[in-house]
Parts: sequence; structure tokens; C-alpha cells
Amino acid sequence: MEFIDVLGFFAGICVTISVIPQIWKVWKTKKVKDISLLTFSILTFGVALWVVYGVLKNDLPIIVTNSISLTLNLLMVYFIVYYEKE
Amino acid sequence: MEFIDVLGFFAGICVTISVIPQIWKVWKTKKVKDISLLTFSILTFGVALWVVYGVLKNDLPIIVTNSISLTLNLLMVYFIVYYEKE
Repeated sequence: MEFIDVLGFFAGICVTISVIPQIWKVWKTKKVKDISLLTFSILTFGVALWVVYGVLKNDLPIIVTNSISLTLNLLMVYFIVYYEKE
Repeated sequence: MEFIDVLGFFAGICVTISVIPQIWKVWKTKKVKDISLLTFSILTFGVALWVVYGVLKNDLPIIVTNSISLTLNLLMVYFIVYYEKE
């Protein structure tokens, strides 16, 4: 693996794991009032498109990191919808 | 511009603009209690690395969209820090 691939993976890992503290915070507090559902909905849609882009370009760092990111952001969207109702 | 570039730009635009409703919400409510500062800090750092990745790969959709994303997320981090103090 070349340096640029490592950089891509590291950039992707940062962006990917970034949502975890937010998920953790919502899980602990059960509060989502200040969080924008629209933000996480558009983000999830965009990340899904990045996965397609990565597949078409055969760009592994983009595929792998955005697939995980998609999963985490879908969970975040679910949390917001779930705790907004509560 | 090829289809794949258009797709990349569109994916990037979605991810980039996604933070705008969150910025708008914080601007209006002045409340950031439920938002994770760590999430937006790691995200901003990761997006900065994507810009470097894009430059090294000479990948225009990645460079352009992540540069705008970087600006918006820096603003978001500033907002969280500013309104947390209030």
C-alpha cells in the first residue's frame, strides 16, 4: 500500500469515526433537541453516493471508509428520529 | 466533465452542505448542549486530510467539496465552543 492510500484511509477513518462521540452522547443523554435531523439525513445520502463513486473509481479507501460511515450515520439518523419521539 | 466526476461533485456537495442546517439551527437557537464538540473536531481534521489526499491524487471533486466542507465545519466548531461558554 502506498503513502497516498494510507493517507486516504486515515482521512476516511477520522471522518468515519467522528460521528461515534455524537452517537455515544445521544445514547447516554437520550437528548437530540439541538441536533439537526436534516444535517444527518443529507450527510447519510451523500456518504451513500461516495460509496458508489468509490466503486466506480475502484478507489478502496473511499469505498471502505464511506461504507462504515454510512452504517454509523444511518444509526445516528435512527437515534434522532427515535429520541425525538420520546 | 465525465459522469463519474459529476457523481463525485454531487456526493461531495451533499456531504458539504449537510452541516448547513446544523449551523442554521445553532445560529437560531444558540443551543449546543446535545451536540458533540469531539465529533465536529475529528470531522474537521479528517476533512482537512481529505483535501490533502485530493491534492496529491489530483482529484478535483475531492479537493473542491472538502475545502468548502472544511470551512463550514470550522465555523461549526467555533459555534459550539462559543455557545458552550455562554
